[in-house]
Parts: sequence; C-alpha cells; structure tokens
Amino acid sequence: MRFVHDGTERFGTLEGSRVRFWHGNLFDYPERGDRTASLADVRLLTPVQPSKVIALWNNFQALGDKLKLDAPAEPLYLVKTPNSYLAPGGTIRHPGGGVKVVFEGELGIVIGRTAKDVREDAAMAHVFGYTCANDVTVADILHRDPSFPQWVRAKSFDTFCPFGPCVASGLDPATLQVRTLLDGQVRQDYPISDMRFSVAQLVSLISRDMTLLPGDVILCGTSVGVGSMKPGSTVEVEIPGIGRLGNRFE
Amino acid sequence: MRFVHDGTERFGTLEGSRVRFWHGNLFDYPERGDRTASLADVRLLTPVQPSKVIALWNNFQALGDKLKLDAPAEPLYLVKTPNSYLAPGGTIRHPGGGVKVVFEGELGIVIGRTAKDVREDAAMAHVFGYTCANDVTVADILHRDPSFPQWVRAKSFDTFCPFGPCVASGLDPATLQVRTLLDGQVRQDYPISDMRFSVAQLVSLISRDMTLLPGDVILCGTSVGVGSMKPGSTVEVEIPGIGRLGNRFE
Repeated sequence: MRFVHDGTERFGTLEGSRVRFWHGNLFDYPERGDRTASLADVRLLTPVQPSKVIALWNNFQALGDKLKLDAPAEPLYLVKTPNSYLAPGGTIRHPGGGVKVVFEGELGIVIGRTAKDVREDAAMAHVFGYTCANDVTVADILHRDPSFPQWVRAKSFDTFCPFGPCVASGLDPATLQVRTLLDGQVRQDYPISDMRFSVAQLVSLISRDMTLLPGDVILCGTSVGVGSMKPGSTVEVEIPGIGRLGNRFE
Repeated sequence: MRFVHDGTERFGTLEGSRVRFWHGNLFDYPERGDRTASLADVRLLTPVQPSKVIALWNNFQALGDKLKLDAPAEPLYLVKTPNSYLAPGGTIRHPGGGVKVVFEGELGIVIGRTAKDVREDAAMAHVFGYTCANDVTVADILHRDPSFPQWVRAKSFDTFCPFGPCVASGLDPATLQVRTLLDGQVRQDYPISDMRFSVAQLVSLISRDMTLLPGDVILCGTSVGVGSMKPGSTVEVEIPGIGRLGNRFE
C-alpha cells in the first residue's frame, strides 16, 4: 500500500488492521521497517504511481458474446491519463453537462520490472502484483463524433481511474473473480479466467509496442454488468485475494 | 531548453551558440544563473517532461478538406504515452513487422500553469510556450481492427514522440508556420492560422475534461503533406521563431 502518515508519503504492507512501513524503492529491494501504524491513522494513496495506465477493450468472452464482438486478433487498448488516477476512498467527480457516467470493475496488472519485447514465457516475472480498478467512462462521449471514437477522452476525466487499495502479489490471476457493487448490490461478478488474452499474453504483447515501467498498470478490461452511476452512489470493486476498492460518485 | 551537461540534468536558455544555466523550478520563478556552456557541450533532452501529451486529430482545415472530414464540434484527441517521448537528435526506431511509419510535423503547446476549467479568454495565461513535434504514427495499425481504431497504440511506440529542441515563449501562435523536411526536402509547410480550434480554444476546452499540468503538451494536429519514412531517413520539423527538431529514423 502507499499512504500518508503524519504528513509523510510512505509505502508498506498490511498486517491485519495495521500497516508496516517499508523503506527504499518499492520495486528494487525495499527494506522492511520496524514501525507500524493503525490503518485508521493513514490516508491511502493510489498504491503505485504509473507513468501510464493501459486499458483493454473487448477482452472478455462473455461481454464480447453479449455485444456480438469477435475475439480480436491482438489486444485492443487505450490509455487513461494521470489526471484520472484516484486513491481508494476518493470521490469520483461527475464532469458536468448531464452525461451518463458508467462504472467498469476491472483487474489491474501492476508491472514490477521494466518490460520491453518480453516473451510470453518470461512475462510473469515482470508482474509485481494485482490491484482492483474502476475504469470510469462517460458513455455518451465515446461515439458522439461519427468519425473519431473518443476512447481516451471518455475515460480520462479527472478522478476517472480509481485503483487500489493495495497491490497483492503471489496470486494466480486465472483464479481471481471480479465483483463490482453499486450501493452494496452486486452488479458484476465475473472470472478472470474468461479473458481473451491472459495476463502473460497482455504483458508480452503490449511490451512489444511500449516499454512497460515499474508501477505501470494494465487494466484487463471489463465484462458483463457494467452500469451507470447516480450522484451519491458508492461503487466498490472487490477481488478476493486483493481487497476492496470503494469510491463515492458525486 | 533542458539538457545534460557534465552528467547533470539542467535547464537554461539559448544565447547564440551557448546555453545559460537557470536554477530552481522552470515553471515557478526560476533563477537565471551566471554560468553558460557551449551548445556543443550539452546533450539536449526533451525540453519538458509532460505527465501527458495530448494529440489532436482533424484540426486543420486544409487536411480536413483533402480527407473530406467535416469540422468537428469539439476537439478530437488521443494521448501519446511517456515511453514515446524522444529528445531532439534521438533516433526514432521502427517497431518492426514491416509496418509503414509516417511523420506528422506539428506545433506543440506547452502548459505553464495548472489549468482546470479555464475560460477561453484566460487560456493564454496558462501557456508557457511552444515547441516543435513529430507525431510519429504506424499508419497500418490505425484501422487494422474494424471494431476499434487503435489511435493510442499506433502513435505510442517507443520513440514515437520527438519534441523540442526548446520551448519558445512570447510568440503569437497564429503567425507560426510549420515546415517538415524529409532528408532535406520540404514535405509540409502549413500555417497555424488554419487550425480549426485555436490555441486558446484547445487549452480552454481540454481543461474542461482534464486538469492540465505545467509541462503537459498539446500537439495541435497536422496538416497536408504527411508521408512515410524509410529507415535511414532524417526528419526535421521546423517552426521559425521556435527552432528545428531533427531526428533520424532507423
């Protein structure tokens, strides 16, 4: 986790209801510290600070079937800009103009080692861990201009990329299940095993296009159950084994 | 300009064939130093380090007319990721796979003050200056998948966003002319006054979507004359009043 404690930005590990402070570089032999603090006494930040967040489109069989989209020949993706990054507990802000804003619960892959032209069988060694994310989107904007789908814009408004609360390591992503709750009601509940491109394939294939840096995040795309949020709603993205990301929408 | 001198990253101003060192924060009352160095003794870096580079599409009347594209109702844009940033003089790398890579000479707007929901009549006060850019693109990828135009990917390969050599301030952008030279031959020569959205409109309208930070860059889009590069080519983007950005393609 990354957090502020007594005015200082730190990172650490969760131990029950306390966080242990670690020191140094998160991605390069960090050192375990002696101090801990109560989780109640820290303010969580985004668990990493990505130079880029890559977001997949049409990467789940179930949603592709529903939307009658063929399996793509290669990963299809866009980028969410840094102004959209939002900490756990932070408020997702409606951009105004009466547009419809939707949640998309997703698994985020957090890169741990610089990855360039990585083979699929070496890809997992470049993954630091996994996080929960909400790929917030203004649905109305996407296809408003018939000549140019506005993927980046629709998904990059300020606060439109909450992720966290932590990065969990040592998991087998194929066993994970993503659940999204709107005001406590389950709206999405889908398995990562339904992905068209696996974690290893995504890291390998995207690393052929772009050098991936430690802290970069790949959002794996969403599946069925996406819906719109009303101001005042709370959205939670929960992935057992990682944690629960909660954000209010205003 | 930003550069490395004697192993240290610095910024400064060009004075003839010498660079004067400045100190502090480029965007917040930097201090003029006493030292200078020969331009020949420094290695140029990208003049700023953007958290995001926003790239306009269909923003010039002449190119829109040629491609039979209507004037859009709002700025249409994508993002080029940080791995694509390339210093003046750096080598643009072919991503492999036999694809066609094209140059697009463009004006870059460099933001100097945090801009959020800025009115058009206040927009210019948030502009630090202007730079030259090459919005390098793999043409073949853009529409390879019929269901999802791959704008971000086609334009975000490593080294696909050279910009520089400097940021020039105090210019009237409406008077600027962009020229792109391929191996010394002029291939683009178009006026910024032909833009569909002016600099002030772009900064104002985009600031309603995303908070713009100091150092962020808005590429204004390109006009007629775009063409492909062959390995071994040199591309120069020259904007009188700013300078000339030169990069080799391999």
